[in-house]
Amino acid sequence: MENKKSEVSYDYENLIDFASQILLKVSYSRKEAELTARVLVEANLRGVDSHGIARLKRYVDDVINKTTIPKTKPEIVFETPLSAVIDGHGGVGQIISLEAMKLAIKKAKTSGVGMVAVRNSNHYGIAGFYAEMAAKEGMIGFSSTNSSPMVVPTFGKNMLLGTNPIAYAFPVGNKYPLLIDMATSVVPKGKLEVYDRLDKNLPLGWATDENGEVCGDPKKVLYNMKSQIGGGILPLGGEGEEFSGHKGFGFGLLVEVLTGGLSHGGFSPDTYNNQGNISHFFQAIRLDMFGDKDKIAKHIKSFLQKIKDSEKSLGNERIYIHGEKEYELREKIMKGKLPLDQKTSESLELLAKEYKIILKK
Amino acid sequence: MENKKSEVSYDYENLIDFASQILLKVSYSRKEAELTARVLVEANLRGVDSHGIARLKRYVDDVINKTTIPKTKPEIVFETPLSAVIDGHGGVGQIISLEAMKLAIKKAKTSGVGMVAVRNSNHYGIAGFYAEMAAKEGMIGFSSTNSSPMVVPTFGKNMLLGTNPIAYAFPVGNKYPLLIDMATSVVPKGKLEVYDRLDKNLPLGWATDENGEVCGDPKKVLYNMKSQIGGGILPLGGEGEEFSGHKGFGFGLLVEVLTGGLSHGGFSPDTYNNQGNISHFFQAIRLDMFGDKDKIAKHIKSFLQKIKDSEKSLGNERIYIHGEKEYELREKIMKGKLPLDQKTSESLELLAKEYKIILKK
Repeated sequence: MENKKSEVSYDYENLIDFASQILLKVSYSRKEAELTARVLVEANLRGVDSHGIARLKRYVDDVINKTTIPKTKPEIVFETPLSAVIDGHGGVGQIISLEAMKLAIKKAKTSGVGMVAVRNSNHYGIAGFYAEMAAKEGMIGFSSTNSSPMVVPTFGKNMLLGTNPIAYAFPVGNKYPLLIDMATSVVPKGKLEVYDRLDKNLPLGWATDENGEVCGDPKKVLYNMKSQIGGGILPLGGEGEEFSGHKGFGFGLLVEVLTGGLSHGGFSPDTYNNQGNISHFFQAIRLDMFGDKDKIAKHIKSFLQKIKDSEKSLGNERIYIHGEKEYELREKIMKGKLPLDQKTSESLELLAKEYKIILKK
Repeated sequence: MENKKSEVSYDYENLIDFASQILLKVSYSRKEAELTARVLVEANLRGVDSHGIARLKRYVDDVINKTTIPKTKPEIVFETPLSAVIDGHGGVGQIISLEAMKLAIKKAKTSGVGMVAVRNSNHYGIAGFYAEMAAKEGMIGFSSTNSSPMVVPTFGKNMLLGTNPIAYAFPVGNKYPLLIDMATSVVPKGKLEVYDRLDKNLPLGWATDENGEVCGDPKKVLYNMKSQIGGGILPLGGEGEEFSGHKGFGFGLLVEVLTGGLSHGGFSPDTYNNQGNISHFFQAIRLDMFGDKDKIAKHIKSFLQKIKDSEKSLGNERIYIHGEKEYELREKIMKGKLPLDQKTSESLELLAKEYKIILKK
């Protein structure tokens, strides 16, 4: 959508390497730096630039502001054979989440199901990354997180929910799983910023103004959000109940309860006051808890194929099953180059200069 | 929204009794009849008339057409300490689902988690009814079902998904749980029918025409849906990707995978060809799998209160937490009368005449 001319292209491996070196400079451990860099660039590979390397500057600032405390070991504060609660003690979100999902998978291997609620964590990147981990082990993976409050409840004025993504990954016998990974808001904040840069009006149903009424002015909405004077992004389904915005609100609330609720941790309005205070929830379910796992995968795959093969609406040539678009882009970029917008590229150049790390294209 | 003058009011207990007697006449067992009647009227008590006693005629027809086979015992065809797959053998949806959720709860009592996938069932009524059962036992309840295909996938033309509700119930130390119970379509079919009766245009974003393009004419949409010539209800988020219709499609797909997929059963397009062939999924998770359950409930409750107490958008006086509206209506109707629209009332009168059962007001 944005001007292609203003893009700068990189080898994705150079970007991972660069981000990793920058994070090492701000006292991340090697393991933390490499994982975080990889998860960030994974988002770009899938076209989810809002969660990609554009966030590197913020990750650096989070260390400086002591929002993130690198080299902190997550602690299991409660445990059963099927479940655990982890306190991240303000450490690196990606490492805490990797450990939490590994624990869920380990428990599922032994018991069939593993569930881990996490508190006192930080931004963990794309939700799907962790859900995928379970799918690679032949399990249903579930991953969810709350985040800084940006979404208004139905009939409410203030931002009380995060964009609260839900990710499910199902192994279906393909190279990639069926990956349903989506924020429960109608759009991410990044989308409002794109419209702002393009001087375009927002579609009515994306965001509200300081009175909580639908608003098409991205500048106004972004200013209001920053100054917290009312309004914000609407839940999936939009304003009020006409298009079932209360359902998107319900899914957002579900995420709060599973993450902040079950972990005895922070809800979205409790985040980034001092520490990150983000909460996550992870679940792994062995597919063979319901019989022959290959048969189940094949059965699901046949239904997905039926949808793909069905007639398209006028003007459309393809029905995308969730994950397909992202994985196809990933393969394409890995063979070629990763384009970043001018603004992101400049922010990386600034980091390169400040930390004396060479940013290779 | 519809004309109040055309409503007829009943004592809800008389309606349960009436429905139960009718179902007994078409060879339901007493237990099946009483449960089914209760689940149907529970929908009316909560204002979900689309799933209420208006369906009684269809339940009767389903027996006559052998879509539902009363007095059929559901069979556990696969089982682990945490999970089971049940084949309903075409029996009564409510009984199969009650047994399945009871089994999930029993497994959760012993093991912490219980999950039951069901195939070859029939319409089970409101999803929330079963999720609530777990919440009453201090557990997180989850209930979901596929249904006859009425929803088009994003960029697709044909109805391939059901309205596929997802229901979560969380005990929060109140009389009623937090109950998030919602179809993954933007609206139920009943809503289109209401607009048709009122001769009103549909909001653009609810449904599509025979080319798969957004359509505001309820008559046309309903005719097309009936004759299956293309178009149908849109997923939550509406048409295409502008308002994230692909997310609603994702939630609908999730339901198909959990129900038809894990049960090795029918997906929505496989339903009502011969037998009902509906699939469900139930889960119960003991809240104390994450520590002190009372503390967790209290923690969640405090967040819900924070949302309720927050500022309202212009013109609104209340933020509804999921379940509140329905439970408040339920209490009001139970103390007073249950209003049914003229059409529903007439269909009950016809059944009363045909089966020689007195329909008391």
